Amino acid sequence: MVSKITPREHLDEVLASYSQCTDDRLLEIMSVLSTHLLSFVEETKLTRDEWMRAIQFLTATGQKCDDVRQEFILLSDVLGVSMLVEMINQQPTDSATEPTVLGPFYVPGAPARSMGDSIAVEGDGGETLALRGTVRDANGAPIERALLEVWQTSPQGFYDVQDPSMTPMSYRGNFTTGSDGAFFVRTVRPVDYQIPTDGPVGDLLKATGRASWRPAHTHFMVSATGYKTLITHLFDAGSAHLHSDAVFGVRESLVIPMEQGEATFDLVLDLLD
Amino acid sequence: MVSKITPREHLDEVLASYSQCTDDRLLEIMSVLSTHLLSFVEETKLTRDEWMRAIQFLTATGQKCDDVRQEFILLSDVLGVSMLVEMINQQPTDSATEPTVLGPFYVPGAPARSMGDSIAVEGDGGETLALRGTVRDANGAPIERALLEVWQTSPQGFYDVQDPSMTPMSYRGNFTTGSDGAFFVRTVRPVDYQIPTDGPVGDLLKATGRASWRPAHTHFMVSATGYKTLITHLFDAGSAHLHSDAVFGVRESLVIPMEQGEATFDLVLDLLD
Repeated sequence: MVSKITPREHLDEVLASYSQCTDDRLLEIMSVLSTHLLSFVEETKLTRDEWMRAIQFLTATGQKCDDVRQEFILLSDVLGVSMLVEMINQQPTDSATEPTVLGPFYVPGAPARSMGDSIAVEGDGGETLALRGTVRDANGAPIERALLEVWQTSPQGFYDVQDPSMTPMSYRGNFTTGSDGAFFVRTVRPVDYQIPTDGPVGDLLKATGRASWRPAHTHFMVSATGYKTLITHLFDAGSAHLHSDAVFGVRESLVIPMEQGEATFDLVLDLLD
Repeated sequence: MVSKITPREHLDEVLASYSQCTDDRLLEIMSVLSTHLLSFVEETKLTRDEWMRAIQFLTATGQKCDDVRQEFILLSDVLGVSMLVEMINQQPTDSATEPTVLGPFYVPGAPARSMGDSIAVEGDGGETLALRGTVRDANGAPIERALLEVWQTSPQGFYDVQDPSMTPMSYRGNFTTGSDGAFFVRTVRPVDYQIPTDGPVGDLLKATGRASWRPAHTHFMVSATGYKTLITHLFDAGSAHLHSDAVFGVRESLVIPMEQGEATFDLVLDLLD
């Protein structure tokens, strides 16, 4: 309780308010958050009108969410937060496959498939694609009983959960490796698609002149006992949007040619710490 | 599109995504925001679970908002953001009255009152209080035709808009000064009250061991042609919560004794720039 206090003194007062917090990790998070949040306001000299627009934007983002739409994850994606969280949490060694974002369209419990099965829906169109490779460790040893969860959009650019006309669990499948670690997934060539732009996040992208495209990709989550779970995509080298991914997920090492109808890529897991 | 990129390189990629933004101010805000937001994630090494809890918290905060409840403003208040926005926007000179937060309960268009009128409701209880003073400039010259918008809670600790049983516009009044700049507002002594704790913000305060009290105060917004609008409170020196205001709004210069049933305080405005 002082007069004419500076922004720095104000921050100290905010930090002191957490002195009774008994959860050390929460205390750390709130302290670092307060420091950056108040620095952001101070450095931008945010006006009252701008602050109110931010309040309205955040409110609308929350209110756009429902059972099948998560606009705050979408916001986290386009701000680059989701990708950074994956970078920090997966921390691959140099020889392991690089991770990328999980995205909002992962669904657990997809149907079990046999190697060589297709996750695509007949009659939907698209170019057929066979994805082959080996799940292995950094020394080249194959990993048996690795679970590959694979998902992507239809050739029309929609995940099953986005389009009520699609059969649930289409373009999804869970594959388990044998002793050779090999996988063989039939699908269709993934297509570029736009993230949902009919909400506050779409408005933000438009206002800032940003693209809303994601380059064509197929998702993989690979888990095996004793290994770190790998969350990644394989990107189509033919995509026009590799350099303007709306969610900053592209890594050069994950880009492979898909135009010949088949592609080979080894998925390399790190041992658990 | 690179491999094994660092958080710094990731930030550069995010910043570059705004290169087509034609709104210079928005570009500045998004650049500073990206820098602080990604630094927060990196410094805390935020886990996926923590990130998901944050997503759920923000979603619930948006969904708690309705026509009369603005949980994101409440969040901004308890994080110290609202107070900093006022500090930055009002920027009083040394001789002017210090500002504090507007709060979420301001209502424009309250009834016009004459000097000496009461804004309190008879029969509600509470100790009577007469607030007197002069609206003046830094040189002591009285300001004529200054509009004082005054509001506070009932003795039960609720603003009219919070309690459907209260008559709309009770404990609110607009007073206009004459040539002597004097004001005279009859009311009841304000009481300490708790900010709403039945939403995500209340959960945050509980989890972090923070208080949810605001020290007793009466709100003033003072506007006059040629002067900067002053948004402030007068705080009761008898409050037990002056050192633990949930929204960091207390300034020593705004604390006055109210236990004698009357208090005097000059409201000093700065000239417009």
